[in-house]
Amino acid sequence: MNELELIARLTRSLPANASVVAGAGDDCAVLDCGQPGRYLLFKTDAVVEGVHFTPEARPEQIGHKALGRCLSDIAAMAGRPLAALVTAALPKNFSAGFVERIYTGINTLAQRHGVAIAGGETTSNPERLLLSISMVGEVERDRCVLRSGAKAGDALFVTGELGGSLAGKHLDFEPRLAEAQWLAGHFPIHAMIDVSDGLAGDLRHILLASRVGAELLASAIPVSRAARLQARAHPSSKPPLQAALGEGEDFELLFAVGGGHAVALLDGWKKQFPKLRLSCIGRITAERGLKLRDKTGLHPLETHGYVHFA
Amino acid sequence: MNELELIARLTRSLPANASVVAGAGDDCAVLDCGQPGRYLLFKTDAVVEGVHFTPEARPEQIGHKALGRCLSDIAAMAGRPLAALVTAALPKNFSAGFVERIYTGINTLAQRHGVAIAGGETTSNPERLLLSISMVGEVERDRCVLRSGAKAGDALFVTGELGGSLAGKHLDFEPRLAEAQWLAGHFPIHAMIDVSDGLAGDLRHILLASRVGAELLASAIPVSRAARLQARAHPSSKPPLQAALGEGEDFELLFAVGGGHAVALLDGWKKQFPKLRLSCIGRITAERGLKLRDKTGLHPLETHGYVHFA
Repeated sequence: MNELELIARLTRSLPANASVVAGAGDDCAVLDCGQPGRYLLFKTDAVVEGVHFTPEARPEQIGHKALGRCLSDIAAMAGRPLAALVTAALPKNFSAGFVERIYTGINTLAQRHGVAIAGGETTSNPERLLLSISMVGEVERDRCVLRSGAKAGDALFVTGELGGSLAGKHLDFEPRLAEAQWLAGHFPIHAMIDVSDGLAGDLRHILLASRVGAELLASAIPVSRAARLQARAHPSSKPPLQAALGEGEDFELLFAVGGGHAVALLDGWKKQFPKLRLSCIGRITAERGLKLRDKTGLHPLETHGYVHFA
Repeated sequence: MNELELIARLTRSLPANASVVAGAGDDCAVLDCGQPGRYLLFKTDAVVEGVHFTPEARPEQIGHKALGRCLSDIAAMAGRPLAALVTAALPKNFSAGFVERIYTGINTLAQRHGVAIAGGETTSNPERLLLSISMVGEVERDRCVLRSGAKAGDALFVTGELGGSLAGKHLDFEPRLAEAQWLAGHFPIHAMIDVSDGLAGDLRHILLASRVGAELLASAIPVSRAARLQARAHPSSKPPLQAALGEGEDFELLFAVGGGHAVALLDGWKKQFPKLRLSCIGRITAERGLKLRDKTGLHPLETHGYVHFA
């Protein structure tokens, strides 16, 4: 059983109550806690030594990555982060200095995005470091973007460049909070997700939740320099396009916007975020399934995202 | 360096923002998220195999304990739980059935207290199970009880019985949510905490936060049957009173109430919660420090609560 199958079993019948607007199955849980005009966003995410980072990672990077992953999920709902709690499960023989440097990474990123670190706990996990972040944020009710709203005819966009994240970006990415808030404030964003499991895998999450399909244009997918370098250095490794489609931890925004808005969005984006690439990579189709158009025609896309436990 | 010293170093200068009413250092973080008349409570708590439970614990008990610890912290603020997220860091070779039974323990307790399980994540932690719960709750602004409000002359109370929790109670305790809400709704509760590190240790948290001292009455401390049985079975182990003072994980409420209200509180309690013992165990003093009065007089109390990593 892989992770997605297990999660499907566990989430079949979870206790709910009137506060839950959207539970398991989106980037964040969405709660109605009685804030006028707003929803609360609620997210938790953990990084584990040997799974999400190697022992060579600097502690500041580990802290940055742990907090950044949660911030990226808040961004995917077009939300603003409010406060985070830090759970540090520390291995035997940890040094206080190491833990303080993890906090330096957390605090630096938190300050940049105005999120408070409101507490947490330390506990022990003898064999390896596990760092879990819980976060609450908020979003205007009419701007909250779920995975489930994509419609046939929507244009698909992705920020930044994809693939090769393990070469470094997975430890020092910048969550796209301002970008997502600007998008939801100016355009009809129907569905959004952050690219953590790989473009193909995360797009499949949107398609499944929205009950639609999609066509991607191979030549439009923004392949990162890291993915190209990786393919050049190891000719037997996957081609750069496959890395962009199937690798994870890019922490870019993938979103579907109402079809008539693509050009205006690209124009506005260039003025607002001139340094960050934005690519229109395809469109949503009524016909289910994910297809890729390249020089030789339109083909069903087999690439899946990273599947945990697989 | 023990856990408390490390936490003191880490929490010296955490990023804050306008939403934080009370950050690190109470049972929950207290946030102002713009809910009219209410605060948001935010808590995270983890249990680790071999630290908080043995491999012999039933998975339902592990789930119960993990969620119950967070609920107990919401209770300590006199709050109502709203929603929780579950982080399951699973060892190699876990079985799906085992994880489902953990969820059965979580879901059963969640349903009893009306809290939604709004998602979470699974990840891997190869050597041992780690289960972390994040929770949000809410509380009326004028009923939120911090650790820092105890005043000289307050009466000190504790619910239930203390000590010997490892014999079983630590896996099947019931968080005192209804009791705490009733208390804060009817009496001037100045400070409250749940007994997780042991009566003496948790009382010291209140005294430190409130800048006061306390006198406990040895004969009034409700020693559990488990603590007495434990002392009888192992005559070389600590006396039952020491177990009640120094052991942890009782998950009872310890609180300070305005001095003139002790008798009315005991009367009202007996009608409201006839099955749950409530004990007046001492009083808050202006003079700092913690003292114990027994047959031989008044002595400084040396017992500390459970100190992690010590």
